[in-house]
Amino acid sequence: MAAHGRDSALPDDTRNPWTVHAAETRYSNPWITVVHHEVTNPGGGPGIYGVVRYRNHAVGAIPVDADGATWIVGQYRFPLGRYSWEIPEGGAPDGTPPLETAVRELREETGLSAGRWLELMRMDLSNSVTDEEATLYVAWDVVAGDSAPEETERLAVRRLPLGEAVAMAMDGRITDAMSVAGLIKLKLLALEGGLPADLMARVRRGL
Amino acid sequence: MAAHGRDSALPDDTRNPWTVHAAETRYSNPWITVVHHEVTNPGGGPGIYGVVRYRNHAVGAIPVDADGATWIVGQYRFPLGRYSWEIPEGGAPDGTPPLETAVRELREETGLSAGRWLELMRMDLSNSVTDEEATLYVAWDVVAGDSAPEETERLAVRRLPLGEAVAMAMDGRITDAMSVAGLIKLKLLALEGGLPADLMARVRRGL
Repeated sequence: MAAHGRDSALPDDTRNPWTVHAAETRYSNPWITVVHHEVTNPGGGPGIYGVVRYRNHAVGAIPVDADGATWIVGQYRFPLGRYSWEIPEGGAPDGTPPLETAVRELREETGLSAGRWLELMRMDLSNSVTDEEATLYVAWDVVAGDSAPEETERLAVRRLPLGEAVAMAMDGRITDAMSVAGLIKLKLLALEGGLPADLMARVRRGL
Repeated sequence: MAAHGRDSALPDDTRNPWTVHAAETRYSNPWITVVHHEVTNPGGGPGIYGVVRYRNHAVGAIPVDADGATWIVGQYRFPLGRYSWEIPEGGAPDGTPPLETAVRELREETGLSAGRWLELMRMDLSNSVTDEEATLYVAWDVVAGDSAPEETERLAVRRLPLGEAVAMAMDGRITDAMSVAGLIKLKLLALEGGLPADLMARVRRGL
């Protein structure tokens, strides 16, 4: 295709440039549906687009206790074929408020209940193929209890200073995108003064 | 399942706790393969696991010029059904070094060539279902040229101060996970002094 750098000087056209001629579900399980589309692409040529639709909205929670410690969860990730340390995460079924699921997942995976919750960020995790969206929270005023992982999970749980978890996200010991983005953003907010005062005090204690 | 919070006190068992009894490809196109597995889950019960395998390794590049400006790319993301502003991104086919693809994608999408490249981070983007991995770079000593997007792309390109792009990642105007994590990490590295001196000078000019 010819170079057309001048396109960038035009007003943004944010309309859908794809035309869908046919859509067919090719795979489905309780977590995902794979829909194959016959399309005309933005250049006007024929094409296909396989989209993976997620039934759940991803949630993650970064708990912070009075000492500035947080908790991370270790598990073997089947799709990657390797072990991964992450913030507590889960999936909110359609129609379930993400915060409600975050509260439940934090309790199931770590045993923690939190009195205060703050939405930290929303992200699209893999938007070239999937529609998966994630909402992350910070949870504080935490109280310990019993954990109760799902049958499909074999989890290790580790309490550590928040600054150590951020270091793991910065140096590649943590690679899960939600965990990396959430931990780094929390530190940057702390440095820039963008957190509620009581949370700020706890976070700074752990950094 | 009964509460078993004491598991977290055991040594980490990082072995694969899943047993696969059968694996079958249920969907395939030039970008993804969907493999359905019959499994025994970590709790010992029967289950299934549908994994989306990506043929490409995701790459992203954050260009920084002598004035501390960067470039972001706008496009309609078919899987999300909406428009998205992102750092320049692409997919490295199996066997292609991710850096080589990042160099090519930056040139195709923005027209920029860069004399210096630094690996910023690696992440797993959606590890509950997919094996998609991403490598992000910072690119500087940039020279402008002609862009040449692929036929399947209709891109808008915007040059802006790096600090403005970071602000978009922090406040939710940018939601793409690679872009959010990369931009925030770059700012945190700049604040903490963790960048090569010539890059640091450019980044600080833009913040």
